[in-house]
Amino acid sequence: MTTTTEILRPASYVYGTWHTAPAEGQTLVDAVYGRPVAVISSEGVDFAEALRYGREVGGPALRRLTFHTRARMLRALATELLERKEDYYQLNLLTGATRRDGWVDIEGGIGTLFNYASMARRDLPDERFLPEGKVERLGKGGTFVGRHLLVPREGVAVQINAYNFPVWGMLEKLAPAFIAGMPSLVKPAPQTAYLTERVVRDIIASGLLPEGSLQLVTGDPGDLLDHLEEQDMVAFTGSAATAQKLRVHPNIVARNVPFNTEADSLNASVLGLTVRPEDPEFALYVREVAREMTGKAGQKCTAIRRAIVPRDRVEEVVAALRAELSKVTVGDPARDDVRMGALVSTEQRERVLATLDDLKAETSVVIGGEERDLLGGDREKGAFLDPTLLLCESPLTAKGPHELEAFGPVATLLPYDTLEEAAHLARMGRGSLAGSIVTHDRAEATELVMGMASSHGRLLILNRDDAKESTGHGSPLPQLLHGGPGRAGGGAELAGIAGIKHHMNKVAVQADPTTLAAVTREYVPGAEVREDVVHPFRKTFDEIQVGDSLLTHRRTVTEADIVNFAALTGDHFYAHVDDIGAKEGIFGKRVAHGYFLISAAAGQFVSPAPGPVLANYGLENLRFVEPVGIGDTIRTRLTCKRKIRKDLRPGETRPTGVVEWHAEITNQNEELVATYDILTLVERARDEADGPSA
Amino acid sequence: MTTTTEILRPASYVYGTWHTAPAEGQTLVDAVYGRPVAVISSEGVDFAEALRYGREVGGPALRRLTFHTRARMLRALATELLERKEDYYQLNLLTGATRRDGWVDIEGGIGTLFNYASMARRDLPDERFLPEGKVERLGKGGTFVGRHLLVPREGVAVQINAYNFPVWGMLEKLAPAFIAGMPSLVKPAPQTAYLTERVVRDIIASGLLPEGSLQLVTGDPGDLLDHLEEQDMVAFTGSAATAQKLRVHPNIVARNVPFNTEADSLNASVLGLTVRPEDPEFALYVREVAREMTGKAGQKCTAIRRAIVPRDRVEEVVAALRAELSKVTVGDPARDDVRMGALVSTEQRERVLATLDDLKAETSVVIGGEERDLLGGDREKGAFLDPTLLLCESPLTAKGPHELEAFGPVATLLPYDTLEEAAHLARMGRGSLAGSIVTHDRAEATELVMGMASSHGRLLILNRDDAKESTGHGSPLPQLLHGGPGRAGGGAELAGIAGIKHHMNKVAVQADPTTLAAVTREYVPGAEVREDVVHPFRKTFDEIQVGDSLLTHRRTVTEADIVNFAALTGDHFYAHVDDIGAKEGIFGKRVAHGYFLISAAAGQFVSPAPGPVLANYGLENLRFVEPVGIGDTIRTRLTCKRKIRKDLRPGETRPTGVVEWHAEITNQNEELVATYDILTLVERARDEADGPSA
Repeated sequence: MTTTTEILRPASYVYGTWHTAPAEGQTLVDAVYGRPVAVISSEGVDFAEALRYGREVGGPALRRLTFHTRARMLRALATELLERKEDYYQLNLLTGATRRDGWVDIEGGIGTLFNYASMARRDLPDERFLPEGKVERLGKGGTFVGRHLLVPREGVAVQINAYNFPVWGMLEKLAPAFIAGMPSLVKPAPQTAYLTERVVRDIIASGLLPEGSLQLVTGDPGDLLDHLEEQDMVAFTGSAATAQKLRVHPNIVARNVPFNTEADSLNASVLGLTVRPEDPEFALYVREVAREMTGKAGQKCTAIRRAIVPRDRVEEVVAALRAELSKVTVGDPARDDVRMGALVSTEQRERVLATLDDLKAETSVVIGGEERDLLGGDREKGAFLDPTLLLCESPLTAKGPHELEAFGPVATLLPYDTLEEAAHLARMGRGSLAGSIVTHDRAEATELVMGMASSHGRLLILNRDDAKESTGHGSPLPQLLHGGPGRAGGGAELAGIAGIKHHMNKVAVQADPTTLAAVTREYVPGAEVREDVVHPFRKTFDEIQVGDSLLTHRRTVTEADIVNFAALTGDHFYAHVDDIGAKEGIFGKRVAHGYFLISAAAGQFVSPAPGPVLANYGLENLRFVEPVGIGDTIRTRLTCKRKIRKDLRPGETRPTGVVEWHAEITNQNEELVATYDILTLVERARDEADGPSA
Repeated sequence: MTTTTEILRPASYVYGTWHTAPAEGQTLVDAVYGRPVAVISSEGVDFAEALRYGREVGGPALRRLTFHTRARMLRALATELLERKEDYYQLNLLTGATRRDGWVDIEGGIGTLFNYASMARRDLPDERFLPEGKVERLGKGGTFVGRHLLVPREGVAVQINAYNFPVWGMLEKLAPAFIAGMPSLVKPAPQTAYLTERVVRDIIASGLLPEGSLQLVTGDPGDLLDHLEEQDMVAFTGSAATAQKLRVHPNIVARNVPFNTEADSLNASVLGLTVRPEDPEFALYVREVAREMTGKAGQKCTAIRRAIVPRDRVEEVVAALRAELSKVTVGDPARDDVRMGALVSTEQRERVLATLDDLKAETSVVIGGEERDLLGGDREKGAFLDPTLLLCESPLTAKGPHELEAFGPVATLLPYDTLEEAAHLARMGRGSLAGSIVTHDRAEATELVMGMASSHGRLLILNRDDAKESTGHGSPLPQLLHGGPGRAGGGAELAGIAGIKHHMNKVAVQADPTTLAAVTREYVPGAEVREDVVHPFRKTFDEIQVGDSLLTHRRTVTEADIVNFAALTGDHFYAHVDDIGAKEGIFGKRVAHGYFLISAAAGQFVSPAPGPVLANYGLENLRFVEPVGIGDTIRTRLTCKRKIRKDLRPGETRPTGVVEWHAEITNQNEELVATYDILTLVERARDEADGPSA
């Protein structure tokens, strides 16, 4: 392993300055040899001032930016950190983690930044606020409407992280808060804070994030929580006991400060009843359980703690796991031949051993117990622990396996007889972050999912079809919920866009359509529109305004139109071409093809010559409301609904944006015939965010 | 007023039986004359058993039903309760409320049931679970995908209600819980519990809801909270102080029981800077403030407590409010000439008077103080209080007006100079349920919304355009969020479909596409499909299965097709018809109209003769992916994506359902040309829920 002669002095970064710990701070030792590695202390940090700084400097700076600008900053930051990853891998070894463990933490964390940057540019507008859901009509006349709007909370997101993922744990909380427009104050667990601090140092040095949007407290959080206000929030990852202590903090309660918890849980993995030892799913199950037991030396909130297997497969599972676990070499994670490193500290090992003792009251040890040869590392001063598999013969009545979490390379086998019982055993964990079901039988998978869904935050179904691409039982993904009910804390840390919304306040806005359109910058049906001598398709993205509108000339739909459209498209549906069938049908007469109507509408509003509108690339929310018969006369109103600036993609030279148009086709009686939204790609002027032109 | 000689004995309804209070329970008196009206007590109720009963009887009964079945039950219940409303209006008078006040409570509550029943049938599938959001592709090969699923929490929704809306308060919590599939245990505030109990009695007697889905505790909740489990939840409406006490209950904390709070807040209404006394908005503002001060005698969580007005308009606002409030007659709410009744109790009046005294330290009384003549009622034993308007000259430095809530007909005027200051004053409430902005200036409205959005749950913009249809500052609507950050409790009671989801557990499911389709009962791109000799459009709603698929024959797109389509539709866009322009355009050649492609696709997959598919009534998610040039050959795969059974509407005789089809058009190189979803209306067999055929 890397030998560091120098003792690190990871500092705090608050109100724009670095505060290095005094020499008499808390001394941390490395996990492998027990040598002093760092001294930390938050002495001298003014926590009230740090929160004030976040609120008054970081928050306003972030709120001035749009979602897309924030996303571009995150992407730039991710690129920068990726270049410096080897520094992080070096420190990672000191925490007892192998390079493979570190990959999840370091590159997984940086990947989360990239991922959130992409999601934000794909799914959010280039605005400072987010309109949500549809416009609700609140009165019959259409003069009173409502819609939800999300705006950033005007406080600080305090993020209290666990020791096991010093990089990912910080970045997966920072990313959604940052995109939402909330500044973060990060408080890493002391044991591995030196790695978090190294990353924060690079982030601050990069200058890529607005000052005040990220602060770091290395060491004790002091009276931080006493100074929280209503617009602040707390996201906590760690033990359930600490979470419970913090969430009843009088100030948090008095001010209704949102407190999001992600706590360890007793996650289950179920081997299906239909799986035979010769099936690929059997091997997948064994590999997954072994991997989850030993990855990060079992120190993962999502690790499999309970392996729920058909009673008559127990022996075969034990035999296969024994073979699999025997391949797990233990020792100094810096060595290439080591598969599992150390726990984070000898104190942590003591805790695991104590829990293991408690578990033994209702279980027996089937694998483990004897000490393996260490490949490097110090057996005494390092925090090594060999994998241990327990078996609980009466899991329906036992308590320990469902309640006691040994946060290390430990799992318990729970035999079951029926699928109902398997799901019940999984639910006995009283709320888990992740569960998995290994079977190729869809009906069995469905039954288990439905039985386990109410008590899980994520469920993986693993089989021969998805095994190759599966990210595994224990991996949270930025697009999907990470969090779980009950024991798992009841929180939601990640969840794609929902993770961003979590940092915003939702407000229902009620108004007349024109005012609601002005507030949300999206056209609302019934709002005033603007007609212009210039055809809206002759305007660039920059020139087009929400509310710009065009009412076309009229067109009478004739029998010839219907006949010709049927002939050209081959669509001879009876409602269009069969007088007898159509009379008996729901319209009582022959009617025009719906696709003819929207095609003829385009014929009316399109501006044929080359211009800034490059293409109609999509259509949404199309509803045919009234049928159009022979002799009916239609016209169309096209109104700019909203605009979404698009970033130039690598290699692209022509800057564009999406303009969404609301179209309404009406007939001679001013009845609505069809309503839909058209997506067009429109040229825009090169701007600052595009960078200099090539 | 109604004189009740009989003393009511409102009972508790738990584990399937009624428990009447012993005679020595708590005696309640009416608000108007102070006469004994009811005796309540929950003595003898076994709270652990009530929760167990809800979990083991009510929950499973509800979870066996689909969203639509539950919605039909709610609608039937609402119809039944509406017929009995006069009974409720009688009891309503005893609470001190006028008939108009009662309308909000009684018909507003019943309306919420109707509203949730409609929303559920419109926006939710006819299933027991709810897939949410889009399918996320988690690997490049498409063999590993994920999606969120919501399932009912498998516990009891404990609903602790405030005294001011004994009917609405119960029904607005019951409705979303019931639709979600969670049983409710209702605990009304004692003061008006006799009215809640009367409604529950009718609900139980109707037999319309499954047994166990609704329980009622009238009186003290005893050790109820000690028996909550992880899958239960609590929704609380009432004072912030009580909320804070309950939410730190050790069992609630230990088990991470979700605790939703809706607490009173110091709601603000802002008169815009641009509004002149002669504008309609000025009169609207005065009327709204007066109405909010005196409606329900000011006992509304959403009432206007702070009237924020331009400094130079204070005198005019006071004069106009004096005129408006002078019309408010006070007395026995049973009398037709009474506009404002009594507070709920003399104890409540004492509390309001004490708060008023505290407020006077930083304000002066500008309206009120002298006692008005009572029109009926007992000045001493009844809980009457005349409207009081205060003025705070230095609202930026004052504390009381932003912190002390007099829960009665009391409001404080706060003068401001700039819009920024007005928004800041509104935010000084530290979180409100509702706010309003009265102006006809869109820019002013936008600036105030953005300044107030982070600290409000709902914002009404009131002006001449929406006044006629506006439901007013104080009215929560089922479609919109009811709840607010900070002081307002940080909860979300109502919020349309979000209020239903709040009672469900969200789980991310990861699997291969075929298994995910089996679990969610929706087709997932990449999943196995089923081809049949029978054309899918020849099958009824009942016969069609998710995954039924058709691959059409091929069609080569010719220059004639493009020319004819342009001629027929009038769409002569250069990319289709102008060889020179098209070559310089983004496709580099003439391409077929997008609408031609989807029309020709329909020509390929439509089955022309009359059959069970009645109409294509809509289209979603259309994206044109690859352009189709002259000579390219296309074909289409159509696959049943999902099915939504539709209820027969009044007068309809032909039962139908919606079948959504996923369509993919590909070219000769198997490249995706276009992807979209088609909505068709398909005949189905009459079923039980349709009732007997006419």
